[in-house]
Parts: sequence; structure tokens; C-alpha cells
Amino acid sequence: MKTTLADIEAARRTIAGHVLRTPLLPAPPLSGLTRAEVYVKYENLQVTNSFKERGACVKLTALSEAERRRGVIAMSAGNHAQAVAYHARRLGIRATIVMPVTTPFVKVKATEALSAHVVLDGETVMEAQARAKAIAEAENLVWVHPFDDPHIMAGQGTIAAEMLEDQPDLDVLIIPIGGGGLIAGNAIAARALKPKIEIVGVETTLYPSMWNALHNGTRPCGGATLAEGIAVSQAGALTLPVVRDLVSEIILVEEVLIERAVNAFLTLQKTMAEGAGAAGLAAMLAAPERFAGRKVGLILCGGNIDPRILASIVVRELERENRIVSFRMIIPDRPGVLGQIASRLGELGANILGVEHHRMFLDVPAKGTKLDVTVETRDSAHADEIFRALEQDGYRPVRVEGGAGLG
Amino acid sequence: MKTTLADIEAARRTIAGHVLRTPLLPAPPLSGLTRAEVYVKYENLQVTNSFKERGACVKLTALSEAERRRGVIAMSAGNHAQAVAYHARRLGIRATIVMPVTTPFVKVKATEALSAHVVLDGETVMEAQARAKAIAEAENLVWVHPFDDPHIMAGQGTIAAEMLEDQPDLDVLIIPIGGGGLIAGNAIAARALKPKIEIVGVETTLYPSMWNALHNGTRPCGGATLAEGIAVSQAGALTLPVVRDLVSEIILVEEVLIERAVNAFLTLQKTMAEGAGAAGLAAMLAAPERFAGRKVGLILCGGNIDPRILASIVVRELERENRIVSFRMIIPDRPGVLGQIASRLGELGANILGVEHHRMFLDVPAKGTKLDVTVETRDSAHADEIFRALEQDGYRPVRVEGGAGLG
Repeated sequence: MKTTLADIEAARRTIAGHVLRTPLLPAPPLSGLTRAEVYVKYENLQVTNSFKERGACVKLTALSEAERRRGVIAMSAGNHAQAVAYHARRLGIRATIVMPVTTPFVKVKATEALSAHVVLDGETVMEAQARAKAIAEAENLVWVHPFDDPHIMAGQGTIAAEMLEDQPDLDVLIIPIGGGGLIAGNAIAARALKPKIEIVGVETTLYPSMWNALHNGTRPCGGATLAEGIAVSQAGALTLPVVRDLVSEIILVEEVLIERAVNAFLTLQKTMAEGAGAAGLAAMLAAPERFAGRKVGLILCGGNIDPRILASIVVRELERENRIVSFRMIIPDRPGVLGQIASRLGELGANILGVEHHRMFLDVPAKGTKLDVTVETRDSAHADEIFRALEQDGYRPVRVEGGAGLG
Repeated sequence: MKTTLADIEAARRTIAGHVLRTPLLPAPPLSGLTRAEVYVKYENLQVTNSFKERGACVKLTALSEAERRRGVIAMSAGNHAQAVAYHARRLGIRATIVMPVTTPFVKVKATEALSAHVVLDGETVMEAQARAKAIAEAENLVWVHPFDDPHIMAGQGTIAAEMLEDQPDLDVLIIPIGGGGLIAGNAIAARALKPKIEIVGVETTLYPSMWNALHNGTRPCGGATLAEGIAVSQAGALTLPVVRDLVSEIILVEEVLIERAVNAFLTLQKTMAEGAGAAGLAAMLAAPERFAGRKVGLILCGGNIDPRILASIVVRELERENRIVSFRMIIPDRPGVLGQIASRLGELGANILGVEHHRMFLDVPAKGTKLDVTVETRDSAHADEIFRALEQDGYRPVRVEGGAGLG
């Protein structure tokens, strides 16, 4: 039952022509950011925009005729759902997907568009899981586990095999861990093909389940993470021993680094990563000295991120870089003052994004008003220059966060 | 002097190892959107994130030793600047780049980071151009034209040669037109390799310079376009006859379609296109029946878009799809009313993004207030359902645009 390189090579033959052989490409902007030599494997270019298709394709193809006739069932609100639905439709297998009732409608619609029968049940993932198990039993459906299955692991492992074929020089692969299917499959493939390669895992600090399992740790699992794709509270029974054997370290990353990594993929590398897809880069940002100068392979494992969340990440990062700043000033409430300030900001090259007046605060004189002005700057030094100029003009500006006109 | 397939084949040998051989990949989500079979050539993955490196690499490599010692100069606020700077540094050639003073600082910084000497001069592109010509003469520098040069055209033409090598079945290429270097080079390559392939050009309705040149038209050129990379007011002298010979049609696209195309690349195909980079897809959205069922090659020619603009495009598209909607209601100004409305919206599954009170409007009773509530919905039907529920509750909602908390 142990997954081997031979299983992974067989999986490669199974998926050929049915799953995209994604490009592995040098990423000079990310290399510049991290001082390593970064290569990115673009799994976000799969039809359903994640690596999950590989495992799903291998698993479904391996079913017997009798199993195919019974139909399959999976519980997932995310990438596994669409991957199973897509390959089941392709193979003419009936698929039932159980999702928690809180699942965003776009994901429900996307999965239904792939001809799956979607059942919305359970407030939480645990409840949905219980419901899915009950349906599977009642309707005699074949269970497709998202990670703890040898076929799934072999399917995911095809990624590293392709990466080392394209770039045999890689020194280290950094791989996100949810239940561990992705890292287990790829650690088996990579270490078999190149024994000296290092495999590093990544989890978020909110869901350190594999880290706990390896270190007899008791860190709590829970909370709203941007990387919901790897928010798994229990390491897999099959994946854990593989990780213990073949993975040198698990790096835990904070939410803010996942956010920065998503932003870096987008603004520097011009590609869209979901939180879990950016976790490998987040690990590099967490421990840059560990990877500096080395040839690092990142698996951009998924690109399904809510567009509104993405927009908010981009704007928040501009605020962090002081390229969007807000100044609060108390000004006399009379004609012409805003005109003076706005003209001054124009001279300074600051683009005004929003203006807000607050007249009701008690620390403002009755004939005054508090003014929040949000501007776009060239960079941090420019923001400081604008601040000093407003000070010199006597406005006593104070920097505030989340300014006018940005929501 | 006429550029031929042989020149383009030579250019391929010149750029090998120095310019990324970008992937051409099927784009099923975009095929679903357009009902064509779409393939995308990812030029946004080049080091400086645009195709301009191809021409720059060929041009600079072709310089004589004496010319290299003199150094080169280019006028550009965009992708050509970074491409010339990058390949000049690689080849040990001194590069001067002239940019208008209005150029965003990030672009200045990015070009300086590539070791170019940046001169900021001229309020407009025309003034910067005049200044660059003067410097070139005074300092005896070699001029690197962005499009009207046989080496540049041959360099850009390598894209179609790679595309047809990877996917010989393509029926049509849709290619953005600024000065025409990209389309001229690629039309030569593609029609020589596959005489039956169709070449369609795209310009924005704001800058129809090549369309004017072909049709003796007098449409005005000017205005702020999202596709500033193809905002060129005068077709090239060398590129125009090639376009006249080999291009079957130029489609003019409105700004709103460019915006939709940028959003589709991002949210469906998980990749970042600047306005000009998305122009080909915008043409498909403008004339879907023209391309339905055909194998269409799109050149995603650049990915350099301002992050704040991108964030705003994404949110605007959610508003267009009614996934973000704002309701305005006149409510009595007393405790508990907002609580009732907010709870009702919660029951309806609408996520509240912003709330704003307006007490100063004269059409509101003195004891009332105007309330703008902005919510996230599942889709258009859900937005309608929420509207009707608020109506039934007696709030007389009115849909408004650009609601609370979004800027």
C-alpha cells in the first residue's frame, strides 16, 4: 500500500492529456525579493485552477467498472470539490459533493456547472463531513478522500516529477500542508528522483496540525485564515509517516506573511495565488536566510481567491508601503481651507483619493472640523515629505489608518 | 530592409537563453466565457513582464561594437523602457531612458533598478520625445525605437513562431496595436508559417491610429485609456504596409470591455494583464460571434498594471455583476432601526460591507435619515431578493451606485 515512485510514474501516464502539464518557470522578480533563485510551478493554470485535479484524475481512473457505476462522493467547499466534479464528468461518473451551508455561492455554482450534484448541509466542515458519510453509506457511493488515499498521493506527486524533469538543479521544494497529500506525494517523488533534495513544509500558525503530529505539540487549530485551502485540523494517517521520514522541517507562517505573499505573486510575478497557493513564498519571507542563494521550487498550488478579498489585500499592502496614506487635521470650518490643502497636495505630487469631514468630535472646536485626507504617494519618503510640508503649513497633521474613501 | 521569416528565425536564435520562451496554454475558463477555443501566450512572465524584451534584445545584440560603446537611448514611460534597460545592462551597454515628468515613481524606480540613466523631462510624451531626440544628438547615442525598426519587428515576431510551434492548429491570432511593431512582426511570422491563419488587430476606440491609417479615417486620438501601452497616435511607417498586407481587420474596443477583459484574465484565468495585454480578449468580448468555435491565440503581451487600478477594476466588476450592491433608504432617526435592517440582511445571507448615514439632505424629514447600506450578495438574483425583502418590510429601498465603504 505504500506509495512509491513507480506509482507516481504510473500516475503520470494516467493523467497525460487529461491534466495540464503546467509550466515550471524562473521567477526573477520573486528571486529579487527573496535573494534565492525561485522557480514557480503554475498549478493555478489547471482547468479548475488547482493541483487537486491530479489526485482526483488518478483516483477516479483507478475505480473499477462497478465502482464507477455506483458514483462517487466527496466533502469539500473548495478545490477538491471542483477537481472531483470535473474529472468525474469527463469519465462519465456521477458525482455528489457535500458542502457546508456557509459555502460562498460562486463555489456552489462553479461545482454545479461541472455537472456535480451539490448537497448543502452542515454549519461546519465537521457537520458536512458527517452528512457526507451518511449519504455515502445510504446511497452506496465511493468516497473520494481529499488527501489520505494512495491514489490521491500518487497523483499529487506527479508535480515534483515534472519539476525535476524541467529543472533537475532544484535544491529545495517548499510545499504547503493541509492534510498532507500534496507534500507526501511530492516528497516521495522528489527524494526518489534526487535523494539530496530538501523538502520543507508550510502550515499557517492557525492550523499547525502536521507540526503538532510531528512534534507531539498541542498548538490550537482554528480561526479565519486567508489560506483556507490548508486549514485542516488533523494530519492524515497515511501522509504523516511520509512527512516524518522525508520532510526536513515545517515552517509555520503568520497571516500577514501569507497576505504579503499573495500580493507579491500578483504585483511582482503577475499571477494569482490563493492563500494556500502563496504559502511557500510566505515561508521564504518568514525565513529568508534559510533559502538565500539556493534554487527553490515553489508550487503555486491554487489560484481560487475571492476577488473582493484580493482587492482588499492589494490596497492594504499599498497602505503598508505608505503608498496610500491618510492624514487627519483639525482645520477652521470656513470657505477656501480645503482648496488650499488640496492645491498644496497637488503641488507636492500627491494624488487625492478621498476626503472626509468630521464635525461631531468633541475635541474639535465648534467652528472647526476634523479633516481626513487620503492620498496616493510615490513611496514612503514621499509620504514623509508630504507630512512635513503640511506641518510647516501649520495644519498639525496626524497619520491615521484606513482613511477616507477606501472602505 | 523588409522583415522576413528568415529574420524572425534569426531573431529566435538571438534571444534563445536571454528571453523566456513563454508558455502557450489552453485557457478553458476563457474558452467558456467566449465560446471559442482560447490559447494564451504568457508574455507577462518575462523578467520585465512584457514582450518588449524580444525586440530590445534583438536590436541591442545587432549593434556594432562602435555603436555599443556610444550607448543607447529610448523614450518610454512603460514596458519598452524596462526592456531596453534590462537587455542593455545584460550586454554591458550604457542606456539612457527619457520619461515624461508625470511618469509614476514606481516605473522610474524599476527602470533605475535596471541600471539605466533615467531623465525626467517633458510634461507630455511629445515633449519627452523631443527632449530625448536632443539628448541623443548631443551625446551621440543610438536611438532605440519602440516599434518602427526591422530588428524590433523581427524580435516581436518570435512570439507567433513559438505559438505555431506549440499549437499549429491556431485559426486566428488577435494582436494589440500601438505603433504596430507587435502585430507587424507576428503577422509576418504567422502568415509565412501558416498562410491560412487570420490576423486580427485591436486598438482602443480612444487611439484608433492604425485604423485611421488603413481607412483614411479621421477618428480623434486621445484620452485616458486603461490600455496606455497601446495609446499611440501615429502608426509606424514600417509597420503600416505590413498591417495593410497581412491583417484582415482591426477591431476597436471600448474602455469598458478592456476593463472586463482585465478582470476576466484575473478572476477566471488567474493571471494579471495590463490594459493593452487584455486587448485581444476585449476584442473577443466585442465580437464574440466572429470567433466562436475557432482556435484563437491571444498574446497576453504585458502585465504591468497599477495595483490600485487593478483593485478598483475588480470591485467595479463585482458591482456590475450585482455581487456588491448599495441600497438607499429613508428611515426614522431613532434607536433600533439600523439593528432591524442589519439583522434582516443577515437573515437574507447578505454580508454588510458598509453603512452610511446622511442627515443633511433636504428631501429627508428632520427626524429622519437617509441610510446607504452596501452589501455583498451571491449574485444578481440574490440582490433582487434582498431588494424585494426590504421593500416588503416597508423601507422603500432605492438602488444606488458606488455605495458606502467602497470609495
